[in-house]
Amino acid sequence: MSRVLGRRFVRADGLPKVTGQARYAADLVLPGMLHAAFLHAGVPRARIRRLDVSAARALPGVLAVLTQDDVPFVRFGAAVEDRTLFAHEVVRFEGEILAAVAALTPELADRACRLIEVELEALPPVLDPEAALAPGAPLVHEDWQDYSANDGIVRDGNDCGFVNIVKGDIEAGFAAADEIVEGRYVADMSHPVPIEPHAVLAQWEGDRVTVWSTTQTPFPARNGLTRTLELPESAVRVVVPHLGGGFGGKCEFHFEAHVAALARAARRPVRLVFDRRQEFTATDMARHGIIATFRTGVRRDGTIVAHEASLILDTGAYATHGPVITEIATMMAAGPYRHPNMLVEGRTVYSNRTPAGSTRAPSGPQVCWALEQHVDAIAERLGLDKLEFRLRNIVAEGDEGPTGQRFEKIGARESLLEAARLIGWGRPLPPGDGMGLAVGWWFSAPGPAGCYIKLNADGSATVVTGAQENGSGSVMGLALLAAEELGLAPERISLVYQDTDAGAFDSGSSGSQTTFNVGRAVLAASAQIRDRLLRMAADELEANPLDLELVEGVVRAKDAPGRSVVIAALARRAQDDGELITGQGNPPAPKMPDSLGGSCAGRVAFPAFAAPAFFAHAARVRVDRETGVVRVLEVAAGHEFGRVLNPIGVEGQVEGGIVHGLGIALSEGTVFRDGNQANPHLLDYKLQTAADVPAMKIAFVDAPAADGGPYGSKGVGEPPVVPTAAAVANAIAAATGVRVRHLPMTPVRVWAALAGEDA
Amino acid sequence: MSRVLGRRFVRADGLPKVTGQARYAADLVLPGMLHAAFLHAGVPRARIRRLDVSAARALPGVLAVLTQDDVPFVRFGAAVEDRTLFAHEVVRFEGEILAAVAALTPELADRACRLIEVELEALPPVLDPEAALAPGAPLVHEDWQDYSANDGIVRDGNDCGFVNIVKGDIEAGFAAADEIVEGRYVADMSHPVPIEPHAVLAQWEGDRVTVWSTTQTPFPARNGLTRTLELPESAVRVVVPHLGGGFGGKCEFHFEAHVAALARAARRPVRLVFDRRQEFTATDMARHGIIATFRTGVRRDGTIVAHEASLILDTGAYATHGPVITEIATMMAAGPYRHPNMLVEGRTVYSNRTPAGSTRAPSGPQVCWALEQHVDAIAERLGLDKLEFRLRNIVAEGDEGPTGQRFEKIGARESLLEAARLIGWGRPLPPGDGMGLAVGWWFSAPGPAGCYIKLNADGSATVVTGAQENGSGSVMGLALLAAEELGLAPERISLVYQDTDAGAFDSGSSGSQTTFNVGRAVLAASAQIRDRLLRMAADELEANPLDLELVEGVVRAKDAPGRSVVIAALARRAQDDGELITGQGNPPAPKMPDSLGGSCAGRVAFPAFAAPAFFAHAARVRVDRETGVVRVLEVAAGHEFGRVLNPIGVEGQVEGGIVHGLGIALSEGTVFRDGNQANPHLLDYKLQTAADVPAMKIAFVDAPAADGGPYGSKGVGEPPVVPTAAAVANAIAAATGVRVRHLPMTPVRVWAALAGEDA
Repeated sequence: MSRVLGRRFVRADGLPKVTGQARYAADLVLPGMLHAAFLHAGVPRARIRRLDVSAARALPGVLAVLTQDDVPFVRFGAAVEDRTLFAHEVVRFEGEILAAVAALTPELADRACRLIEVELEALPPVLDPEAALAPGAPLVHEDWQDYSANDGIVRDGNDCGFVNIVKGDIEAGFAAADEIVEGRYVADMSHPVPIEPHAVLAQWEGDRVTVWSTTQTPFPARNGLTRTLELPESAVRVVVPHLGGGFGGKCEFHFEAHVAALARAARRPVRLVFDRRQEFTATDMARHGIIATFRTGVRRDGTIVAHEASLILDTGAYATHGPVITEIATMMAAGPYRHPNMLVEGRTVYSNRTPAGSTRAPSGPQVCWALEQHVDAIAERLGLDKLEFRLRNIVAEGDEGPTGQRFEKIGARESLLEAARLIGWGRPLPPGDGMGLAVGWWFSAPGPAGCYIKLNADGSATVVTGAQENGSGSVMGLALLAAEELGLAPERISLVYQDTDAGAFDSGSSGSQTTFNVGRAVLAASAQIRDRLLRMAADELEANPLDLELVEGVVRAKDAPGRSVVIAALARRAQDDGELITGQGNPPAPKMPDSLGGSCAGRVAFPAFAAPAFFAHAARVRVDRETGVVRVLEVAAGHEFGRVLNPIGVEGQVEGGIVHGLGIALSEGTVFRDGNQANPHLLDYKLQTAADVPAMKIAFVDAPAADGGPYGSKGVGEPPVVPTAAAVANAIAAATGVRVRHLPMTPVRVWAALAGEDA
Repeated sequence: MSRVLGRRFVRADGLPKVTGQARYAADLVLPGMLHAAFLHAGVPRARIRRLDVSAARALPGVLAVLTQDDVPFVRFGAAVEDRTLFAHEVVRFEGEILAAVAALTPELADRACRLIEVELEALPPVLDPEAALAPGAPLVHEDWQDYSANDGIVRDGNDCGFVNIVKGDIEAGFAAADEIVEGRYVADMSHPVPIEPHAVLAQWEGDRVTVWSTTQTPFPARNGLTRTLELPESAVRVVVPHLGGGFGGKCEFHFEAHVAALARAARRPVRLVFDRRQEFTATDMARHGIIATFRTGVRRDGTIVAHEASLILDTGAYATHGPVITEIATMMAAGPYRHPNMLVEGRTVYSNRTPAGSTRAPSGPQVCWALEQHVDAIAERLGLDKLEFRLRNIVAEGDEGPTGQRFEKIGARESLLEAARLIGWGRPLPPGDGMGLAVGWWFSAPGPAGCYIKLNADGSATVVTGAQENGSGSVMGLALLAAEELGLAPERISLVYQDTDAGAFDSGSSGSQTTFNVGRAVLAASAQIRDRLLRMAADELEANPLDLELVEGVVRAKDAPGRSVVIAALARRAQDDGELITGQGNPPAPKMPDSLGGSCAGRVAFPAFAAPAFFAHAARVRVDRETGVVRVLEVAAGHEFGRVLNPIGVEGQVEGGIVHGLGIALSEGTVFRDGNQANPHLLDYKLQTAADVPAMKIAFVDAPAADGGPYGSKGVGEPPVVPTAAAVANAIAAATGVRVRHLPMTPVRVWAALAGEDA
């Protein structure tokens, strides 16, 4: 029985964070440090007629002013290379960076920005994604055909990523249906809003630069910097101090290159700290606005026989990861259901909004919210219980996914039953209350990983990876895995992470991948150390290494625990004899599951969901019909994560996901006025607070996955945020009898729905 | 032919250091940081009657005041565990730390120190090392028998490390001698005086502490901290920013624990920065004061037949590495000469002086200065040319060392001939000028080492080790070795070092060991990456990996250089396919050479000199007989380092060593008055400046060593400082006809010697 895994360990970074000891990028100060400021466009679409920085450069105390003319002309972008560090000729969203300044004080830097003379020719912004897809619509990127893009991305004008999934015979399916149910749902853009804003500090030493940054993806950030400033990867070190949250909004490459370029020009360290308005308007953190339409054919017995979905994702001014997220969205639009015949199409549409990014489970909550309302609507049409209808169609072992992947042991059905059990599905409720269910699925993103472990001479150990801790506690899992493998107490494992020089390449704290990928590397590195310790102990105990085990700080005979050697003594002796006990692991990334059936076009990175995790949330709400205010009283969550390694950590993720999901459900949405954000501040952009949090009940379904990460585990970072809004929406419908088809389901929209209007 | 090794590469840390970009520990600032100050004893020997910190603790703005009562009672020390963090009951030297304070400003911290009430009962200090060895002498450590010490250390009262080497039959040797020559030489304590003083910054996060420190030995510093504060090694990270020189004076464990304890007590980051007086009086940086006496029997033909030496090393108040350094000193007292019959004894004597440490080639310059004057005196007695006499006795391949180690291919004789050739030995000189020669040998200290290398996707690479860069440029050699092995340009290799969390255990930048030990680990880690690249390229080129080579960024067919694959392309493809190319190396430390003959007692760590390097310096001086001022006009250096990997770096080491050696020779010596230092500042402690530097000529003798480091190289850090003072002394004697037997050979001492007095 494991001494570590499955037990409850408080994360190592918890104490410094709650006591205020933790330091964040904006806390860092270097001698001679300058302060950066950006000049943003302030309008959503324009042609740049003139940009004169000479007055700004002449201001005493200003040491550098940069525009696109001062940096290499390099187009970059995660999926489509459609942007440059600074605006080039045109402005595509209000937060577009026209110029950057480094000055002795933040006030001077701001003043210099105001001295920059800008002449912009305003153009009518592209704001309606459906209109933007029409032939002859104004193009957000007139040069889109000149851009490079990742292999397999299908683009056409304002659509920078077309994806479809075709399975079975959709027409035959509809022909066989007893009922056909249609629905259309619209989700507004929202924001992840981590407590900590973006901050970057850059310091050059010779031809090398160290960048402290609030990134969730230090290596992609490094590589963005090296690409845009034309440096070798070895010349750039990206270090992340404690990160004050990210939720996917700090993925990829942001302002590291701007600040590094300023520091190089000014020959001084330079620090940038965003304010809240910049966080909202000048990042690519946003959760995509989505328009989803469904048409589903069912038999009277509740069997789905045809499922058609169309998704439009508004990616804003730049593609970022949009095309890949649209792929995910098409998988999500299928849902964890058996679909013999299916046609899902997704489009990634440019607009003149702030670019959307990879916010936690990108597209997941919105598409799940739409699909699961649609599923409820089908059940209603058939007069079936919503739990019963879902159980009839939900996937199980042996079924195949939308693109034909064959599911092994999974816990979709069991998660749904757990959520229903915990909420007390079907029990009588007081008037005005309603209960809703929603199911979903998500994946772990396979990627390369490496790990280096050093056993110290006192039997403690240090685990070095390039992993990143975005606040989710994921790196704690790495310590626990090393502790388990090496037979050491978790307190005796220290971690080095989020430093691109120290650790191996890592794709970052995104895609619920840390335990899945880096965990495997930890196992591989640990195995080398285990082997050495087992051989040393076998010599000493005159035993066969196969008969020994590492537990609780000793190597001992499995059948005679009294015959043991202390690991610290082995480590000390080795070092005294001139030998270090170290290990490294660089296991290849898991292969994506085969697509056994179905066909797809425009598909890039997700032919299937690797190590899919399944889950269900159930919500009970009370709706005030006079005001439209929805009070969520209770949320129950059933989750299958393969195997839960650290329950306290996973529970924290689920609880956080629920609260995050409630914000998406009820209050978090960006309002645009003429293409500019109207609520880029926390007074009008309403986050959930502790006072809004309902009772939560959580259950885990154990289903160790052959295709999972260490010990059959699956990624837990994103799934919990996916189904909450959907469960709340269905609960609202249950409570009120009307569907709210616009996300977030603000009081005014609920009120309007009750009044028969669409707000 | 190598594309990297043997060519001239400027060190990567050079540009930031000369442009002022480099940041040092004293530059670091953290939010909320407090300032530390120490209360030192101020007297060399006393009993502590009272130590009351209550008034200091009550001073507003003081957040912590610590004495030995506030930290665990743990005795520590590198060879003998004879000290505690703070003075316990007694004071043994003026710099002893009675208490430590952390306060809001440095001024407040100093004021708090002055508020501490101390009552000391003064005792007569032990200052004469010879008297201290007499029976019944007052003991510096009354409890010496209670102390733990490393295995094999022979102690007795004030002698904390007795060592001897016995070889052949010394009495028979003297009986066979035609002449017996005796001599006595005395060297004062001196200091390494790096530009940067000691500085430590400590910051706790939960139960882990990060310490930025000016240490040359981050891992021993970490381990000293964990031992004295009773923490696991995994709980402490020691990071060294750029180090502003160390010269051996920043080895081991200094003030890291004091500052960490203050930071823990004050719950704030705390920074300590020493002033120059503290550097002189309160560290254990000093070069040992030594008394050396020789008695040597020679035949008329110049053959040495008996050699007796007695050495007394004044280790000051604490042993530190003294016993090991006395061992080295006994090897140095033999010199690189054939000795059929020899008796060398060394003693390590406590006194109430500032403790001595491991300053660059500890004991080497002093003992070489004494021995080589003695050797000159023998040649004079025999009427032989000093070069000729040395050539007659110097060791060569096949000879055995003092403890019987058998020499393989070495360049002792060749180095001597090179130095003589470069200086123009025997040429006529103007009146008042004199020329002197000196030979010597030194070693590389074997130790464990580890390395982790990551190939980046753009074909650049990052090398992670625990190595430390004390200013000598040694880590540049690691980059060059990786570049050579991986076929990459050195500019595309970055290094991570001096961070105990990131890299493998390393004994530090001491013992001329970095290339010798860590270099082997770099080769081993590189080999894993080479293998992977060769296999990938072999697949692509349809070739046998054995027929391929890595050069200039490509893998190519040895016999058809046009058939090649770019390394960056292989790295990129691997990463895109989900595989990282990384390697680690942890080769065992070289075994010490066997002692084939001779016997020794009290010997601890140096049964022989591993990978011995041989060298000779020649100096030409001009002596002003009126003032005793010696002007060094020219120094020539012949060095055998096995194989020189980066000539520009090794030349820099030799040049720096010569200048350092001139200071030891002529001006650098500590003056004591009643046991307190009388010149602990740079006004009265005279360092050599650019204006004092003579013409220098340097030649390297190539003798790749089978027992050496990578490519047959040997450590270069310490040897260059060893023979300069000796060569200058012999040149003074040649110029004046008198020997100066007291180091440093200040004008007043030279003048006194000319006047027939001993100053």
